[in-house]
Amino acid sequence: MLIRLKSSATQHQYRELLDYLEREGYEVKKYSTDESVCLSILKDAASLDADDVRAFDAVEEVVDSRPPYRRASRALKPEDTVVDVGGVPIGGERTRIIAGPCSVEDEGQMHRIATHLGGKGVFILRGGAYKPRTSPYAFQGLGEKGLKLLRGAADSQGMRVVSEVPAAELIERLDHYVDMYQVGARNMHNTHLLKALGRTNKPVLIKRAPSATIEEWLLAAEYVLAGGNPSVVLVERGIRSFARHVRYTLDVSAIPIIKELSHLPVLVDPSHAAGRRRLVPPLAQAALAAGADGLLIEVHDKPSLARSDGAQSLDFDGFDELHAALQSLAAVLGRPLD
Amino acid sequence: MLIRLKSSATQHQYRELLDYLEREGYEVKKYSTDESVCLSILKDAASLDADDVRAFDAVEEVVDSRPPYRRASRALKPEDTVVDVGGVPIGGERTRIIAGPCSVEDEGQMHRIATHLGGKGVFILRGGAYKPRTSPYAFQGLGEKGLKLLRGAADSQGMRVVSEVPAAELIERLDHYVDMYQVGARNMHNTHLLKALGRTNKPVLIKRAPSATIEEWLLAAEYVLAGGNPSVVLVERGIRSFARHVRYTLDVSAIPIIKELSHLPVLVDPSHAAGRRRLVPPLAQAALAAGADGLLIEVHDKPSLARSDGAQSLDFDGFDELHAALQSLAAVLGRPLD
Amino acid sequence: MLIRLKSSATQHQYRELLDYLEREGYEVKKYSTDESVCLSILKDAASLDADDVRAFDAVEEVVDSRPPYRRASRALKPEDTVVDVGGVPIGGERTRIIAGPCSVEDEGQMHRIATHLGGKGVFILRGGAYKPRTSPYAFQGLGEKGLKLLRGAADSQGMRVVSEVPAAELIERLDHYVDMYQVGARNMHNTHLLKALGRTNKPVLIKRAPSATIEEWLLAAEYVLAGGNPSVVLVERGIRSFARHVRYTLDVSAIPIIKELSHLPVLVDPSHAAGRRRLVPPLAQAALAAGADGLLIEVHDKPSLARSDGAQSLDFDGFDELHAALQSLAAVLGRPLD
Amino acid sequence: MLIRLKSSATQHQYRELLDYLEREGYEVKKYSTDESVCLSILKDAASLDADDVRAFDAVEEVVDSRPPYRRASRALKPEDTVVDVGGVPIGGERTRIIAGPCSVEDEGQMHRIATHLGGKGVFILRGGAYKPRTSPYAFQGLGEKGLKLLRGAADSQGMRVVSEVPAAELIERLDHYVDMYQVGARNMHNTHLLKALGRTNKPVLIKRAPSATIEEWLLAAEYVLAGGNPSVVLVERGIRSFARHVRYTLDVSAIPIIKELSHLPVLVDPSHAAGRRRLVPPLAQAALAAGADGLLIEVHDKPSLARSDGAQSLDFDGFDELHAALQSLAAVLGRPLD
Repeated sequence: MLIRLKSSATQHQYRELLDYLEREGYEVKKYSTDESVCLSILKDAASLDADDVRAFDAVEEVVDSRPPYRRASRALKPEDTVVDVGGVPIGGERTRIIAGPCSVEDEGQMHRIATHLGGKGVFILRGGAYKPRTSPYAFQGLGEKGLKLLRGAADSQGMRVVSEVPAAELIERLDHYVDMYQVGARNMHNTHLLKALGRTNKPVLIKRAPSATIEEWLLAAEYVLAGGNPSVVLVERGIRSFARHVRYTLDVSAIPIIKELSHLPVLVDPSHAAGRRRLVPPLAQAALAAGADGLLIEVHDKPSLARSDGAQSLDFDGFDELHAALQSLAAVLGRPLD
Repeated sequence: MLIRLKSSATQHQYRELLDYLEREGYEVKKYSTDESVCLSILKDAASLDADDVRAFDAVEEVVDSRPPYRRASRALKPEDTVVDVGGVPIGGERTRIIAGPCSVEDEGQMHRIATHLGGKGVFILRGGAYKPRTSPYAFQGLGEKGLKLLRGAADSQGMRVVSEVPAAELIERLDHYVDMYQVGARNMHNTHLLKALGRTNKPVLIKRAPSATIEEWLLAAEYVLAGGNPSVVLVERGIRSFARHVRYTLDVSAIPIIKELSHLPVLVDPSHAAGRRRLVPPLAQAALAAGADGLLIEVHDKPSLARSDGAQSLDFDGFDELHAALQSLAAVLGRPLD
Repeated sequence: MLIRLKSSATQHQYRELLDYLEREGYEVKKYSTDESVCLSILKDAASLDADDVRAFDAVEEVVDSRPPYRRASRALKPEDTVVDVGGVPIGGERTRIIAGPCSVEDEGQMHRIATHLGGKGVFILRGGAYKPRTSPYAFQGLGEKGLKLLRGAADSQGMRVVSEVPAAELIERLDHYVDMYQVGARNMHNTHLLKALGRTNKPVLIKRAPSATIEEWLLAAEYVLAGGNPSVVLVERGIRSFARHVRYTLDVSAIPIIKELSHLPVLVDPSHAAGRRRLVPPLAQAALAAGADGLLIEVHDKPSLARSDGAQSLDFDGFDELHAALQSLAAVLGRPLD
Repeated sequence: MLIRLKSSATQHQYRELLDYLEREGYEVKKYSTDESVCLSILKDAASLDADDVRAFDAVEEVVDSRPPYRRASRALKPEDTVVDVGGVPIGGERTRIIAGPCSVEDEGQMHRIATHLGGKGVFILRGGAYKPRTSPYAFQGLGEKGLKLLRGAADSQGMRVVSEVPAAELIERLDHYVDMYQVGARNMHNTHLLKALGRTNKPVLIKRAPSATIEEWLLAAEYVLAGGNPSVVLVERGIRSFARHVRYTLDVSAIPIIKELSHLPVLVDPSHAAGRRRLVPPLAQAALAAGADGLLIEVHDKPSLARSDGAQSLDFDGFDELHAALQSLAAVLGRPLD
């Protein structure tokens, strides 16, 4: 961290800053240019918040070139992380697809969907049992009963399971049923939950909050990593912008940026970004072309009867058609689809 | 709700939609115009999600004129709600100020701040004990020890206390110390927490998430109200926009809009929006002039030594100066400051 | 257009609205539902601004299902438009690449770039001679001298030329040198310029303004089309969002949306969205995978010496590598690159 | 400007950068810290674009602490600029209100409005004669006939006139009728127009484009100032954000920021931000409370019959009520309204 001092800073203001830095244990080096006096912080500055430094009267400007996340940073770990979901890798040489309905609804539904997806070579089944919905009057999920149906359907096809965990106190309950925990976009900033997931030993999939910067998103991952759990998968699912023709604006540029800054795998959820099924295929293709490690796609046997997100769910024909297109695309991109 | 059908809709597609609506128990009226065939949903349509209806092939357009929130709506309760925080009203005839440090740090700090604020006629003290921070390496708060210090300082001045509750499982612990629970902007979408707060009998202050629409914000309030707790206070604290000269863009227009759509009181937190103390006074004044019921202001006896948010905290002189300006302003606006 | 009246509307307020609609020549049909009284506007309502109707006291809600643009609409012209740029088609069966430097700088530069690009099968050369720059102190372009260099370089390779026209009064001057006019993102809302281009007989490439909705963008095209010029090419180049890791957020979802709403071809400019050359290839690939008709790419023989936009320009090696990747991709997508 | 070099930069890459800087005439000073090697640019670096420097392979990071605008900067001119509009000051000790209809429509309308506003002590009349509208099918203004009506109405009340100039080639025509040129939000990035206005000797009012950063807005002013015209008034009128409950999000924080960075006066247009007349009063009050030098308000004698922007125009009663509230407010803020 470089701290440039105001030319108008008094000796007293300067002392106040130095005292603070020394009390917090940072090593400081001072140097001058023709323009200004600067302080360079040498040791362990990653825990020093640039905003805290800016609060001092002596400070003109703070340049913080080290990212505030460490374990998530590619600088710390140059090689790509491959996350193991019960034997199924995410990241690495192949493109991974996770699919399933938004909500688990009943046994027949889950059985039909799992059978279809399993038959297409999809190895990880998604489905919500605890559904944090915008409205308290909307369907909130089947709870533990839903988890049982999800697990049963997956097991019948030899598939792995990912489902959303809405609160730390429900981790233990989900643990019996899932192979990977999902942190929803609404909970990306829920540090209480993230800390608790850092103490588990299963992979954690973290969706980007619609207002999160790349740095905030990687810091959410850092909460899990810092807790001792090295298995995090990131999911881009669209950000809030002024554009109203889609539910969320899919930020494809986030994919190469994450690849540059971090070693963690990154998937894309085109369904939530699109909000309408017709837009899912072009966004899914764009995601792979931009370098995503895979996709998270909502599929339902009867989308118009889905109890949530029907408008953006693909039916079986729609999924099959997209799957075929993605196979060709993934092959030419050098990262084949199973 | 009005549903306009596609002119190309087949009889089969039309039947599919009707069956769904009837199965879910809605009463439907059909009428035709020269342009199109429409369905009007007559009963209890507020629980019907417009997006679910849009998923049907027969549907061209859905017009949903009723807000998805009910208890938070001014249509349901035309008169303003005044929330009682241990005898101190928020909303109504007077302008209310809540002030205090971002984080509770130690006994001396809390004592000095409470004494100063109490002396200026501030009746509600704020202070964070559980701090959900963007970085896992930043100060996370003193926990229960902080709550004790906060309560003690407030009691010494006869003040009420509001503090952030980061997770449902901590409600019981906070309950011994606070008069009002704060839901932080990061947790506005945490429906698990909101549901749990709906089952308490203390007021809940809900900060707007930086990406939340007005509707999503009122639906967060609706979770608490629907749970049986009628005491919700809304806090605007800035939204995420492209503008980079402030931490968040204070959406002053949200104030008159909330007053139009809802009966709930709305405060403004200029400190988090500004990110720098110099901007706090103009934003605080703008908030009152736009009709806010009061303010939530970060004050610290020594901002440059604050363990969080020092850059945006006012010192005592800064607070006193702002307080005097707000008194004149509130008086001319017809809602005097205590 | 459907107009739903307030249940509280007085007879006088209702009359006021009806008088207005009749005076403006619209045919109105009234019908009632159990919920409300509605007016349906039958003739030529596309010229009626929904906001003007909303201004009447009697009006509760306006539903405007017809897009405000007509000639740009796919409803009017279902088949794809192929724009002819001096014999080179944009849109249709093949993927089109336009490339060249941000600014025309000197003869050697233009000659080297045109030779390289022409050798790779690029048929349209871009280059700015009039450069509207954010700062008045930045390089503003070579003006007519630049146009001559651009034309000369293109002619030596049998290439077509596109260059930005910054004002209506410069159209005539550009006309001697270019095959297609470019309207920059900064000028997309310059209706004076758009009207003047509607009176020309050369194709017009319209970049999306960084704050433009899809509707505003298509209405910019409509200005040209309504003036009698049927040849418009749209270019997505990123929107302003809160995300700060790129210069602009590339809105890939705009591509399928444009394809749905309009018959006009749509290209993507990954260079301006990215702001950094390393991000150009993934964004370029994502654009084609999402269905774009082609790309507009900044290429410079010596990017670090470019007088504008060097940071986002590809050098020859970078372009060649990307070109090869795009050839494979375009082939698998069924729209080969020349 | 500080340039921090990559630790991995080669001697060749370093030379390339140095050569460029020296060729462009900058004086460079090199120094090292324990962390890195930095270059400090000493002379005239304001014309050096940080993005151009970032394009060099040797560069890790660029810190650019000097604003790219000069003449608009408060650093250059610490005292507030007061702009003289035909003898009526904007900026300084009093709060200024500019009012009038969105479009000039006919003689009677202009006469009634000017008479009413003049009677309330409004000294500057606004009205559009050339209307850049989003749709080519919307009313585009009366042109020169409108200017005559506007001037006539203003003269009858001894008022000054401001009207929008949509293109450089129309400046001469407007010059006969107006006392101040308005650059609309759609044209803020139209550098061709800004340069031409820099060569005039009448004040220029520049509305902020809905996607413009503070820096881009001040650079638009810089174009006029750099051309030799020192009289620029800035107008905040709302930015594009995700928030959909208003037409544009009024960025009140822009007011104190402009006051900090620049000496130019800043007004607020609450009408365009609000989009609905009911929101105009709270936003107008917030603007003054945040420190604006005045307001630009749309007023119409019969808003529901206005040919543009009727929904956001105040009628005479609405204006009178707001005017009275603003008088009290402005008095307590220490900058009385005439």
